[in-house]
Amino acid sequence: MKKVTYSIIGAGNGGIAMAGYLSHIGYDVNLYNRTLENIQPLIEKPRIGLTGEIEGYGELNLATNNIKEAIEGTDIIMVTVPAMGHYNLAKAMAPYLEDGQIIVLNPGRTGGALEVYAAIKKDYPNKNIVVAEAQTFIYACRATSRTDAHIFKSKKEVSLAAIPANKTLDVINLLKPAYPQFIPARDVIETSINNYGAIFHPAPTLLNSGHIERGAPFEYYTEGITPSIGGFIERMDAERMALGRLLNINTLSAKDWLEETYGAKGDNLYEAVQNNPAYHGLQAPKGLNIRYIYEDVPYSLVPMSSLAKQFNIETPAIDSIIRIAELITGIDFYKEGRNIERLGLKGLQVNQIHEFAEKGSISEEREEGVVA
Amino acid sequence: MKKVTYSIIGAGNGGIAMAGYLSHIGYDVNLYNRTLENIQPLIEKPRIGLTGEIEGYGELNLATNNIKEAIEGTDIIMVTVPAMGHYNLAKAMAPYLEDGQIIVLNPGRTGGALEVYAAIKKDYPNKNIVVAEAQTFIYACRATSRTDAHIFKSKKEVSLAAIPANKTLDVINLLKPAYPQFIPARDVIETSINNYGAIFHPAPTLLNSGHIERGAPFEYYTEGITPSIGGFIERMDAERMALGRLLNINTLSAKDWLEETYGAKGDNLYEAVQNNPAYHGLQAPKGLNIRYIYEDVPYSLVPMSSLAKQFNIETPAIDSIIRIAELITGIDFYKEGRNIERLGLKGLQVNQIHEFAEKGSISEEREEGVVA
Repeated sequence: MKKVTYSIIGAGNGGIAMAGYLSHIGYDVNLYNRTLENIQPLIEKPRIGLTGEIEGYGELNLATNNIKEAIEGTDIIMVTVPAMGHYNLAKAMAPYLEDGQIIVLNPGRTGGALEVYAAIKKDYPNKNIVVAEAQTFIYACRATSRTDAHIFKSKKEVSLAAIPANKTLDVINLLKPAYPQFIPARDVIETSINNYGAIFHPAPTLLNSGHIERGAPFEYYTEGITPSIGGFIERMDAERMALGRLLNINTLSAKDWLEETYGAKGDNLYEAVQNNPAYHGLQAPKGLNIRYIYEDVPYSLVPMSSLAKQFNIETPAIDSIIRIAELITGIDFYKEGRNIERLGLKGLQVNQIHEFAEKGSISEEREEGVVA
Repeated sequence: MKKVTYSIIGAGNGGIAMAGYLSHIGYDVNLYNRTLENIQPLIEKPRIGLTGEIEGYGELNLATNNIKEAIEGTDIIMVTVPAMGHYNLAKAMAPYLEDGQIIVLNPGRTGGALEVYAAIKKDYPNKNIVVAEAQTFIYACRATSRTDAHIFKSKKEVSLAAIPANKTLDVINLLKPAYPQFIPARDVIETSINNYGAIFHPAPTLLNSGHIERGAPFEYYTEGITPSIGGFIERMDAERMALGRLLNINTLSAKDWLEETYGAKGDNLYEAVQNNPAYHGLQAPKGLNIRYIYEDVPYSLVPMSSLAKQFNIETPAIDSIIRIAELITGIDFYKEGRNIERLGLKGLQVNQIHEFAEKGSISEEREEGVVA
């Protein structure tokens, strides 16, 4: 079997690490970045140095800021850009996508694969492509320069699903030689609802706004999540799980997820956070102009809230955090974020949503289109 | 003219200072506290020591935990208990109130006089009493022991209004020899809407939840109110002012109020806060179990929000703070706080609200009661 070839889209922390690792272990890798300046050093010398869990270097096949060149002829397109970039990236790639290509969002946040799939299919309904999303990024890593990355730790298991979902195992099998950590989720609805960043990022950030904006140092998780804030995010998590139950997907509470992922136990979420050794020493961001707000509110909380509203599930804790983020930033995240219209799910019943995730289309007419 | 006699209700920071000052300058003063333990030292030796702006001591006429004894035969009943105590206090005093007595809430927060007046009139519709409220407490002060108070500073001007409003000047004239600072407001709707604690207390507290709950030291105003939090509370203040405009009352923005009260200027609220010398050094509370949440949310923000809803004014910033406070404390503040039902304002038009504040009753039938 021919070795698969990769495009990595985005030369940020994750993209550099992923491109470095895949080329290091012998894959043909193209690395794309939209801003020329950031990729220029790798265009001049396409070699990525790796430190940390993986030590060594990898030679890229190509480094470019031309999206057509970047994806041309590759098998798997690993997208590592923030969720705010997914839609525009999909539109930019769409004309050049080739039948059989697989796009993997690392991660999708909530509704990433749905949004990218819909954006491509809108203009190119006949292209035969698969869009998958991982539930979280596979590494804890940092780019240490434009040409080097440090990988602190690879995650042990990361669930992944594709649209159409009957391609999930194919995608996992193709990724397996490089990334045996990927395990299948039922579909992209499951990976979307099991987005724990939605729970751990915006609320502790906004409820510690003053110190984050002043740049006062504190440990984001262990100091920032006090008993009251822990209680608050447990309520948000309960809303997320209620939505998950309605959508018939498997989901763990954030507290149980901490135990499963990190072995961190506690009687409540606050205690589990305090007992998570992986959180100790992690400093809070300095400033509010961060992805915990600008990515996680519109691309994690808004799609959850928007889906919940469609099914008359109340999400007061999630909604109050969205609202405060909107008022602090002056952005209408609910309108600009991944609402059900943008995800192509408006008017769909639960079984139709899963059918869409399963097949990439639905057989029945949408309710909103039915004239009785 | 006979010198007026005072009852002071509540032997906390404000009550001790007020009772000490009034007795120091020669008034007959009864001091009441519900909890015997706290007033016991003054029952044993009814002498209050004063330091700070006023130095000296005052001899009380009576210290007691018996409400009947406390108010019997006095002219003015100065209430210094937190707003959470207003309703129960009104019910406890009601049977013993004498015609002509004046109750002054120091301060009323939002709707305090309306609530107390309604609570008394419900059971004793024929008692001839006046209920007034001050817009804020007249001193910055602290009780330094059960028998001593330190007065940092008296405010220069404090607006006050009575129900019925045609008694406002009478009340101010009676208070004037002791407190020349009181100036008349149009009515208790004006004092209620000009409650700046609603703006400065709950939002900065909740948006600094983590550090307050952990007891990490910071200056509440100058460090806690960052540019983003300043922007957020300006939006809350704009909602308060929109309500004020609808209710045809005079109100200053919180920014302009800082300039008028403290001479603190700035291009925006954040800057005015930073430029307010009176705020420098004021430390944040240590813990979330505080009046900034338990008093200001249900007794300041809830009545504003509830009134606004009745007139279809949107208050998204105020409401999001109420909601977060509810989710963090587990208390339904909207239901338990001073909503329009509890204030006796449900179904009233703007002119009827002012008529009620003016006369203590309304001549027209309430809209909700009208059968067409």
